[in-house]
Amino acid sequence: MDPQLLIRPLVRALHPYVPGEQPKIKGLIKLNTNENPYPPSPKVLAAVKSAVDERLRLYPNPTADALRARLAKFHRCRPENFIVGNGSDELLALATRAFVQPANGAKTSASKATVQFFTPSYSLYPVLADIHGALSRAVPLGKDFALPSPRDLKRGGQWDFAAALTFITTPNAPSGRGYSTGELEELCRAQKGVIVLDEAYVDFARENAFALALKFPHVIVARTFSKAYALCFQRIGYFAGHPALIGALQKIRDSYNVNGLGQVAALATLSDLPHYRSNFRRIIATRRRLTRELEKLGFNVLPSRANFIFARPPAFPAVVWLQKWREKRVLVRWFNSPATKDFLRITIGTDAEIDALLRAARQIMAA
Amino acid sequence: MDPQLLIRPLVRALHPYVPGEQPKIKGLIKLNTNENPYPPSPKVLAAVKSAVDERLRLYPNPTADALRARLAKFHRCRPENFIVGNGSDELLALATRAFVQPANGAKTSASKATVQFFTPSYSLYPVLADIHGALSRAVPLGKDFALPSPRDLKRGGQWDFAAALTFITTPNAPSGRGYSTGELEELCRAQKGVIVLDEAYVDFARENAFALALKFPHVIVARTFSKAYALCFQRIGYFAGHPALIGALQKIRDSYNVNGLGQVAALATLSDLPHYRSNFRRIIATRRRLTRELEKLGFNVLPSRANFIFARPPAFPAVVWLQKWREKRVLVRWFNSPATKDFLRITIGTDAEIDALLRAARQIMAA
Repeated sequence: MDPQLLIRPLVRALHPYVPGEQPKIKGLIKLNTNENPYPPSPKVLAAVKSAVDERLRLYPNPTADALRARLAKFHRCRPENFIVGNGSDELLALATRAFVQPANGAKTSASKATVQFFTPSYSLYPVLADIHGALSRAVPLGKDFALPSPRDLKRGGQWDFAAALTFITTPNAPSGRGYSTGELEELCRAQKGVIVLDEAYVDFARENAFALALKFPHVIVARTFSKAYALCFQRIGYFAGHPALIGALQKIRDSYNVNGLGQVAALATLSDLPHYRSNFRRIIATRRRLTRELEKLGFNVLPSRANFIFARPPAFPAVVWLQKWREKRVLVRWFNSPATKDFLRITIGTDAEIDALLRAARQIMAA
Repeated sequence: MDPQLLIRPLVRALHPYVPGEQPKIKGLIKLNTNENPYPPSPKVLAAVKSAVDERLRLYPNPTADALRARLAKFHRCRPENFIVGNGSDELLALATRAFVQPANGAKTSASKATVQFFTPSYSLYPVLADIHGALSRAVPLGKDFALPSPRDLKRGGQWDFAAALTFITTPNAPSGRGYSTGELEELCRAQKGVIVLDEAYVDFARENAFALALKFPHVIVARTFSKAYALCFQRIGYFAGHPALIGALQKIRDSYNVNGLGQVAALATLSDLPHYRSNFRRIIATRRRLTRELEKLGFNVLPSRANFIFARPPAFPAVVWLQKWREKRVLVRWFNSPATKDFLRITIGTDAEIDALLRAARQIMAA
């Protein structure tokens, strides 16, 4: 029996997943995956440690009730507005399955089977569409990665205002560009399908669009504890939106999708927000310094509202800088697509890490 | 805009998920969800505690490499034979999506779109089929929940030997009945689609069918750290099988599906197996004692190979016993279906918990 024949043709045809580089080299400065350079707060670590006891034998709360109640208080809405996921990645996948028809279904219009997003943005979106057998519609952002207005999109002719699901990364990745709530609202008003505003990096921005998830029944805001709250390891993200959409996602998730210590960590985080706010200010200050110093070296650095910058280097192509920095034990990220290949994405590290990156850059320029 | 219209008709029609009872009442003896009454080993708790540090800010290993390498050593096969999941529930759902066609597809034969299982068994299987838009084929077990032979199944006419995916809970739940590797192998030989042998309770049995996952390219064995290894809270399960089937599941899972502290806990567990083996012996001894004592009271207790028993009570209907035990603060489980409604499922608790259950039973009988 050929086991390949036991696999759905759709899945057989998918490219195998290639995880991002997890360097094993000691002393490497890792500025490639937008993790927070600072650990969770001492209170969060203490809360998690003190939960490591007899309770591990029991199932976690299946609906993350305490966490959803706290989120409702924090965001001034109701627990029914929230679903918690095993990272926001799980929720992005659930949204695809709940709101988008597979394209091979008999009676489906193209729009009902479409996952739509701007390019460049989070590279997971087309992967989710492929896994589900849905159509991907990738529409370029404007000049300097600006969000096109509905009028621009109509004129461009590529955008589907009836797409079943549209993902918008805001602030954008990898450009770091921030979008105003006003321009996002204008796009939401023009759109008929579900819109997920993926605010993974919003804590490093000047404004957020959370209010749109409460204002519009077709708008969901995605948040994560991974980046700003330094909890990548524990996989906690959430969606906020209309109870009807949230309820649809609740129906199709795994029964116990959120691990217990992750729930404990997220709850403790929400009780220690001043610690994290000072952390955000520190990262923003480092971002400002990094931008200034790279500009002195001739880099073109795009304005960033995230915990990373997107910069066009001088003297050598970006991919050569990637290699040269790597030789000096500094790891940054390069995306091989026409719109991004001239840039490098650099995660904001600690001040010492950024000093090392700048020192290496000066050596590269001087060599 | 009616948000219901944004949801796929398939998902809209699903019944909302109702989580199992999580009693908040203090002092209730909880023998209803098959959790281990004993906590993880001191070494496991120490390993998890000492991992609660700066690393929480980083992504966990996306492919659970260290854990898969250790599992390969333990089971004497290769890391490529394993996928680790956010509990085995996640993996059961992935298997449905990877191996079964949605039934609404245009060119699908019924078998290719069928999730098949025996009844009674794990109630999640038909839910997974419904979520995926697949067909459910539920075939009754034999007398006293025996596994029918291929010949019996042929004669019965209900079984589909070409079903895309067949789930077999072994030892069975809720009956607790164990199946021999010989009879499972006979069924595997007769079956053309993928078979998942769900061995969630196998550590409490006399034999396991792991070897079949290495012998047959269409057979997967599912294991979990939740029950026997007291790690429900941390959501770790795994599948073992042919690299082609495992690879298909790897392609469609979330990129970082297994939380980091869960990986740490599972690894530490595999380094402290003697502790758990003595725990299994203790639970099996309590199971024997509970069986004997309930039989003295007139219960008909089925032979169990799991960490629970399935028993037909005397004097009152099972559902009345459920209520009477509950009034005495003892929680057991009753399943409302024709094949199960005369039975109660009782999780093996600590000796003190079982004493309390027996004391309550004697009071109920004497009243």
